[in-house]
Amino acid sequence: VSAAAAVVSLVGAGPGDPDLLTVRAVRRLREAEVILHDRLLDPAVLDLARPDAVRIDVGKGPGESWTQERINALLVEHGRAGRRVVRLKGGDPFLFGRGREEVDALVAAGLAWEVVPGVSSALAGPAAMGVPVTHRRVAATVTVVTCSRAAGEADPDWDALARLGGTIVVLMGAAARAEVGRRLVAGGLSPEVPVAAVTNASRPDQRVVHGRLADLGSLPIEAPAVIVVGEVARYAACAAEAAALAAA
Amino acid sequence: VSAAAAVVSLVGAGPGDPDLLTVRAVRRLREAEVILHDRLLDPAVLDLARPDAVRIDVGKGPGESWTQERINALLVEHGRAGRRVVRLKGGDPFLFGRGREEVDALVAAGLAWEVVPGVSSALAGPAAMGVPVTHRRVAATVTVVTCSRAAGEADPDWDALARLGGTIVVLMGAAARAEVGRRLVAGGLSPEVPVAAVTNASRPDQRVVHGRLADLGSLPIEAPAVIVVGEVARYAACAAEAAALAAA
Repeated sequence: VSAAAAVVSLVGAGPGDPDLLTVRAVRRLREAEVILHDRLLDPAVLDLARPDAVRIDVGKGPGESWTQERINALLVEHGRAGRRVVRLKGGDPFLFGRGREEVDALVAAGLAWEVVPGVSSALAGPAAMGVPVTHRRVAATVTVVTCSRAAGEADPDWDALARLGGTIVVLMGAAARAEVGRRLVAGGLSPEVPVAAVTNASRPDQRVVHGRLADLGSLPIEAPAVIVVGEVARYAACAAEAAALAAA
Repeated sequence: VSAAAAVVSLVGAGPGDPDLLTVRAVRRLREAEVILHDRLLDPAVLDLARPDAVRIDVGKGPGESWTQERINALLVEHGRAGRRVVRLKGGDPFLFGRGREEVDALVAAGLAWEVVPGVSSALAGPAAMGVPVTHRRVAATVTVVTCSRAAGEADPDWDALARLGGTIVVLMGAAARAEVGRRLVAGGLSPEVPVAAVTNASRPDQRVVHGRLADLGSLPIEAPAVIVVGEVARYAACAAEAAALAAA
C-alpha cells in the first residue's frame, strides 16, 4: 500500500524512546490529522505530531472501557471521512497487540491501509541489558511470548517451549513470572537456566535483574518488564557492563 | 552506554528501506567517521552518511575473505583511535549476525559501545505481506530461526519447533526451504499448515509466494526471502490485498 494511497497507517512506536521511531513513523505522525494511540511510555512520542492533530488515547488498561470493536469502528469512521489517520501502537504493530484485527476491519470497510513496522521491545529490551537474543554458540532460536491474554486467546504451549529452549522472550510477564518459571521447569527446562529482566529499558530509571529460572518467581521484577530466559541472559550478569548501562 | 561516551555504535539498519532506519540510527550514521557495513540491500542507507566518512564493506558473502575476527580487530583499531565508528548491520544488531561477539571484542579492549536496535526483517518481511506474526486466535508465539549457519553454530531443534508450532519465521531460508519443510513435517507439523514467503520485501520488485508446508520445497522462492510457516500465513493468500501490495 503506497504512502500516498494509505488513509490509515498502523505505525509501530517502538519501545518508548522517540529516538527509536523509524523515519517513516515520524513522517506519518507529522502528517496525521487523527492519532489513536496506546497508553505510551513516553509522551515525547506524541509531541512529534502536529499541534492541531486530534489525539485519542485508546489505551486498554485497567478500568478502561475501550474495546477492540470500538477502536476498529473509530478507525473506520475517521478513515471513511478521508482523514489521515495514524494508529500508533507500542513496539511493532503486528507483534501482539491485535494489529491484524484492526486491518481486517479496514479491509472490510474498503479502506486503504499500511503497516509501518517498528522496533519491538522484544529486541530493544534485551539489547538495553547487553543481551543478544541469539548467539551462534548458545541460542539458535528466539521465541517471543506474551503473558497478556486477550479474550479468546490461546495459551502458549509451555511444554513445547521448554523443550525447544533457545532464547525465550516474555513480554508483559512481570506479574506472571512465578507461573512462567514453574511451567518452563515443569516442561523440562533446567532450573539453572539464566534469566534476566529489564524494567523501563533504555530510560534513566532502567533496572536490570538477573538470576536463574528456579528463582524467577522471587526476583524483584517490576512491570512493565521484558524477561529473557536462556543462556544469553548470562550477558546481563556482567557487573561492569551493567553498571555502565545503568550510568548511561 | 550514553551517546556521548560511545565510541563504537552497533547500529541496526532495518530491513533495507532507509525510511525504516530509526531516528537514532540516522543520527549515528551522520556522525560517523568510519562505517563498517554489511552488504546492504539498499545503497541509499549509506548515502545518509557524511561524504567524507570512511566506508568499509565487510560483507561476508561468497568469495569474501572477511572473517569475524578481522571485523572485530578493525572495530577495535578504529575505536582505540578515538574515531566515531558505526558498525552497520542489517535488521537488528542482536538478532543473528554475531553482534554480541563484536561487543565482546570491544569490551575486552576496554572500549565504550552501544547498540541501536533496528527493525528486523523477521517482522518487516511478514508485515509487507500483510501477515501478522502473532494473532490472538491462531498464534500465541513467534519463533525466529535462520538457515545461515556460522561455523560452530548449533542447528535449531526442528522437532521441538514443529511441536511448538505457532508462527515460525525462517530467515535466509530460500535455498534450504525443502529441508525446512521436510524437517518440520517429520517433527509432526501438519503438511497442510499454510506457508508464505516474501522476496525483496517493501521494494518495487517485491514478490509474495504462498502455499502449504508440504509444498514448501517446490514453491518458487528466491533469495533473499523471509518465509513464514503457520496459520497467520493465510493472510498472504488474500488475492485482493496481495495485488494492492504489489502495486504499491
